[in-house]
Amino acid sequence: MATAPRYYAEYLHLDRLLTAQRPASGNGGAPAHDEMLFIIVHQAFELWFKQILWELHAVMTAMAADHVPARELSRVVARLRRIAAIQPLLHHQLDVLETMTPLDFLDFRDELVPASGFQSVQFRLIENRLGVEPATRLRIKGAPYFATLSPEDREAAEASQQEPSLRDHLDRWLARTPFLRFGDFDFWQDYQTAVNEMRERERAIIEGNPNLDPVARDEQLATHRETIAGFDALFDRDRHDELVGRGLRQLSYDAFLAALLITLYRDEPMFHMPFQLLVALTDIDEGFTAWRYRHALLVQRLIGDKVGTGGTSGHVYLRKAAERHRAFRDLFELPTYCIPRSALPALAPSVREQLGFHWEHAQS
Amino acid sequence: MATAPRYYAEYLHLDRLLTAQRPASGNGGAPAHDEMLFIIVHQAFELWFKQILWELHAVMTAMAADHVPARELSRVVARLRRIAAIQPLLHHQLDVLETMTPLDFLDFRDELVPASGFQSVQFRLIENRLGVEPATRLRIKGAPYFATLSPEDREAAEASQQEPSLRDHLDRWLARTPFLRFGDFDFWQDYQTAVNEMRERERAIIEGNPNLDPVARDEQLATHRETIAGFDALFDRDRHDELVGRGLRQLSYDAFLAALLITLYRDEPMFHMPFQLLVALTDIDEGFTAWRYRHALLVQRLIGDKVGTGGTSGHVYLRKAAERHRAFRDLFELPTYCIPRSALPALAPSVREQLGFHWEHAQS
Amino acid sequence: MATAPRYYAEYLHLDRLLTAQRPASGNGGAPAHDEMLFIIVHQAFELWFKQILWELHAVMTAMAADHVPARELSRVVARLRRIAAIQPLLHHQLDVLETMTPLDFLDFRDELVPASGFQSVQFRLIENRLGVEPATRLRIKGAPYFATLSPEDREAAEASQQEPSLRDHLDRWLARTPFLRFGDFDFWQDYQTAVNEMRERERAIIEGNPNLDPVARDEQLATHRETIAGFDALFDRDRHDELVGRGLRQLSYDAFLAALLITLYRDEPMFHMPFQLLVALTDIDEGFTAWRYRHALLVQRLIGDKVGTGGTSGHVYLRKAAERHRAFRDLFELPTYCIPRSALPALAPSVREQLGFHWEHAQS
Amino acid sequence: MATAPRYYAEYLHLDRLLTAQRPASGNGGAPAHDEMLFIIVHQAFELWFKQILWELHAVMTAMAADHVPARELSRVVARLRRIAAIQPLLHHQLDVLETMTPLDFLDFRDELVPASGFQSVQFRLIENRLGVEPATRLRIKGAPYFATLSPEDREAAEASQQEPSLRDHLDRWLARTPFLRFGDFDFWQDYQTAVNEMRERERAIIEGNPNLDPVARDEQLATHRETIAGFDALFDRDRHDELVGRGLRQLSYDAFLAALLITLYRDEPMFHMPFQLLVALTDIDEGFTAWRYRHALLVQRLIGDKVGTGGTSGHVYLRKAAERHRAFRDLFELPTYCIPRSALPALAPSVREQLGFHWEHAQS
Repeated sequence: MATAPRYYAEYLHLDRLLTAQRPASGNGGAPAHDEMLFIIVHQAFELWFKQILWELHAVMTAMAADHVPARELSRVVARLRRIAAIQPLLHHQLDVLETMTPLDFLDFRDELVPASGFQSVQFRLIENRLGVEPATRLRIKGAPYFATLSPEDREAAEASQQEPSLRDHLDRWLARTPFLRFGDFDFWQDYQTAVNEMRERERAIIEGNPNLDPVARDEQLATHRETIAGFDALFDRDRHDELVGRGLRQLSYDAFLAALLITLYRDEPMFHMPFQLLVALTDIDEGFTAWRYRHALLVQRLIGDKVGTGGTSGHVYLRKAAERHRAFRDLFELPTYCIPRSALPALAPSVREQLGFHWEHAQS
Repeated sequence: MATAPRYYAEYLHLDRLLTAQRPASGNGGAPAHDEMLFIIVHQAFELWFKQILWELHAVMTAMAADHVPARELSRVVARLRRIAAIQPLLHHQLDVLETMTPLDFLDFRDELVPASGFQSVQFRLIENRLGVEPATRLRIKGAPYFATLSPEDREAAEASQQEPSLRDHLDRWLARTPFLRFGDFDFWQDYQTAVNEMRERERAIIEGNPNLDPVARDEQLATHRETIAGFDALFDRDRHDELVGRGLRQLSYDAFLAALLITLYRDEPMFHMPFQLLVALTDIDEGFTAWRYRHALLVQRLIGDKVGTGGTSGHVYLRKAAERHRAFRDLFELPTYCIPRSALPALAPSVREQLGFHWEHAQS
Repeated sequence: MATAPRYYAEYLHLDRLLTAQRPASGNGGAPAHDEMLFIIVHQAFELWFKQILWELHAVMTAMAADHVPARELSRVVARLRRIAAIQPLLHHQLDVLETMTPLDFLDFRDELVPASGFQSVQFRLIENRLGVEPATRLRIKGAPYFATLSPEDREAAEASQQEPSLRDHLDRWLARTPFLRFGDFDFWQDYQTAVNEMRERERAIIEGNPNLDPVARDEQLATHRETIAGFDALFDRDRHDELVGRGLRQLSYDAFLAALLITLYRDEPMFHMPFQLLVALTDIDEGFTAWRYRHALLVQRLIGDKVGTGGTSGHVYLRKAAERHRAFRDLFELPTYCIPRSALPALAPSVREQLGFHWEHAQS
Repeated sequence: MATAPRYYAEYLHLDRLLTAQRPASGNGGAPAHDEMLFIIVHQAFELWFKQILWELHAVMTAMAADHVPARELSRVVARLRRIAAIQPLLHHQLDVLETMTPLDFLDFRDELVPASGFQSVQFRLIENRLGVEPATRLRIKGAPYFATLSPEDREAAEASQQEPSLRDHLDRWLARTPFLRFGDFDFWQDYQTAVNEMRERERAIIEGNPNLDPVARDEQLATHRETIAGFDALFDRDRHDELVGRGLRQLSYDAFLAALLITLYRDEPMFHMPFQLLVALTDIDEGFTAWRYRHALLVQRLIGDKVGTGGTSGHVYLRKAAERHRAFRDLFELPTYCIPRSALPALAPSVREQLGFHWEHAQS
């Protein structure tokens, strides 16, 4: 219980918060009207980035444990969902920023040079903690992304690259799920059989497509053979590892299989939360990807092909980053390997019981 | 141009901004996890309130002038629209806050007493500047709303009550529109004739409604007579003033007529911006009304019928305030007096020319 | 597999769908431009209402069973969440409809009389299936809501009133949860003790509030005593039943207790999905309530105080319905009875084990 | 006035609308649960596409005239804004569709082959009418986009390619704006002088950027020279025409200049609506671009790298189309040529008067 009566403005430290808007334009006179919006939008972004980092920290602490109890998992999912619930705000804040026209921006843009949104260390931390890999990061005008950060910020960014990311934790957690190694239940052999049947069906679709001329058909069959090649990796650890080596997969073999298994048998009670965890991460990855792309459009709309305040051609960089800086791309690959429920191998009864609750058993 | 190279974090004063989150729970130990969200949502609200006040200030300064040039008006409209564009953010921030469950809130709620969102002086300033009248304000547990504010905040709130509001400026601007007093074009007499015909049609609708039993029909005809009574006020300054006296109208007679005229003849070039101005104010009034109501639902969902931290039964207060604290309710009354375009008196050609551009005339 | 090659337009029956827009205005000539928008918005509403009914049907079928297996429950939750995901569309469709101004509406409004949105039988079915009670429904101009429906629609609406609603199914499902009757674990006695302590704390908050004058304090203490009176109902089946009799509670005593238990111990694996179920229903109730209120504002904005096409004073009715037509209001009462986690009685170890998974046990 | 009393369901032709959902799965038995959602989402898309086409038709009819009166322009803007207001619905409908998981989709996906969203002729008409050029369109597996359409749909699509697009109308309207040829006011010469000064400033920014190493600086100066090259096109009709020839510009020289002039002097009353027109088109272009990209993410999430039902690798195609199928890309190039207001040549007083209202003049 508070000792002195709390006051709203003190509790929220509004004296700090509401005096932190210092327009650079105007030189002490009246600043450019729209600079206030520019500052406040970016400050609101930073507040939400802090909140996202707060949630990520709690999630990563929980997932770093050698054993993640089921009761903990529901909290992890709730916090990831909160991040996903914050993402629409980031989108809408761009809508608000877009009420500033290019001409209004020009009223104070020169004052910002060479500061740039690329210098948001909180956003870099989010990326690194999710699992964006240093090696795949776009360079900014020939230099690594952290080159323009202050020494302090750079240190924080580089340190976060050394620590295990959320994807690393996810990988370890998935890889040790016991249900990959069920006594004599040889799931993956059954699955391979079922998959082979589906492949044939897919090929038939292409060959039977009346709208394709021979050239298009051949092109497409080539694509299909490529898909099959990727499919093979599902049943061959070495090929999967090779894809990882080429940067085409991010998760380890065991983790990828476990994620697929959870996806396929998500109805089993024990998989409810793990499945929601995977969906929440998919949402977050999609949310940031769409946001980066939208951000690129906004920059193009505001400055066209001008050089950005940070010295880069803004919208082209952002557009490329949208695809490159994804931390959970593998979750978007899982559907490639899904087969219809009707073709899915049935789980052995003993396995199914293991995946349920005590209570349900007791009730029957 | 900046003398020293700008750095993103310095420009945004992130050292202040990102150190202003001081959870009250935990006593120096780990705070309740969700208190961070609670703080950041409210800080984000305050940032946006500051932005809204910034836009309102510019708009009010422009509208306070004795002559508002047409070129100024487009800026006024753009800024009001920006406020309307910010409002969805306020809604979505409630969505995010709602990811906090009642139990999570209880982890730190006692620490907040007696602080309360009712103490947001920025929100009170927004209300006062828009035109919420002290007399119609809900009292908070028997006391005026500013009773729980700090002396400094209270002073600011009370001062803002003394100054002309945006509605006052709008009123003066509308009332002096020249087009109410066109030489020998007696608009209002023509309009009264047209209106009388419409009234008859409305009455016929009710009397001819086959789904109404006699009791319902009588009840509805009574409602219609009431509407007509209000209608009369359109053609009778004294009756309008009487409605103002009873708190049923907020705009003066001349202003109300001008607003209706703009609404009816919005296609005339000179009315384009004035019409957009009225629409933007309508949007803002609706946005805050819906937000207050949604806020009430959130509070009910978070604390049920518990007494709020500020000592009030939160959701009931907020629900009532949704209707009571409206500054532009009159704009929602204009449709009552609109008649179909087909019945609208034609403007005299000389008037129409006056409402157009030089250029268009020159082109013909 | 389809026998003939499918074509997009045939699959979607676009020939039906896109020829179902027949403006009433224009008499065969050019219709009022905005009538198309009016038609399409309402048709889009009806499409989504059909989808909501589709999901409700699946959910109700599952919940009607005497035993709802845990694996089924995740599907129920997913489908309720889909309804909640559709609700923002309903909101945004009002935003789109609001691009129509009152004057544009007047161009065709007379053609609609006496048709009215009140005649949407699908929306009535949604309300009835969720659990809106006939007795609490607002009458439309002295007659029951179904009075203006066609015989066929009326029959459907009345039939849906006779069938058990989703709230009825929820009630039965909650009431038979086994965890209310744990061997010798006397949960409710422990809870009552903990609650009594909290009540005292609440009262102290009011009495210690320095901002309250004596009059306000007394008023508030009275409110608190009322809250306590409601609280008593938690431990007294007869008082709860009395509240049900007065329309202040909708769930049965056992169901209400079970819902509270799930809310308090939601971290236990077996309660993960039941808790998400309650949250989804809370979201849905809140979503429709906010939508009704927003709809009322739109109607006021479009027609002011005119009599609606269906013969009612539209916005006043809709505003009242927002509160009255709620099917899961009790879920918003649960927080009233929540106490902080720190004060929560610990579950007996044997109970906690029962609420977990087989596997977790096996792993240790 | 309607002769027979209207009934809601008849007015909306709900008998047609609500019987147009015929799932392909189930063979007369229970269909796959989620196919209903799939159908209804796509039907809702088609309803909104119809509405967009309706608005586009009205807008294009107005803009096709040899003289577009100012009063007409406000209607054009309102209708384009309505399209922009519909676009968020299209986004949110993807959110709703995303509640369908890959496994749920597999339950009926095979039934759809070879139907595909690529066959939505309404969407093709929207693209063509906005101004997507046949030459820049992505081919679908080696064939033009209309290859898989039914003969009737193909005819409609090809016909729409022959007609002038909205961009064509915009071009003609912009090109004939009188204010490009003001008596002896040589605007473009003044502008060129002002621009040259800005160019120098831009170059100084790069050269003075302390964060760039020599390699990066050279790279960036090269980019800047490229920007300048593009800039030259502003003052050189031939170079502009060359850019048009290479597909880097879509508007004619005169139209591009007029659009820039309107952007720069938007505060002049006569430019209020023309500026809003350009902004609305920018919004629409951005909205569809972001939607296509988001759609690509959804497809990747639903089917991964599987071949789409239409026989293409869906998400890759859609991602490319996001950039390629833009009709108003030039509006995103305007900011490249904007210079700060402080450097903007002043309009001659006589010109400024011409751009204002009669009335304002009369008032002074």
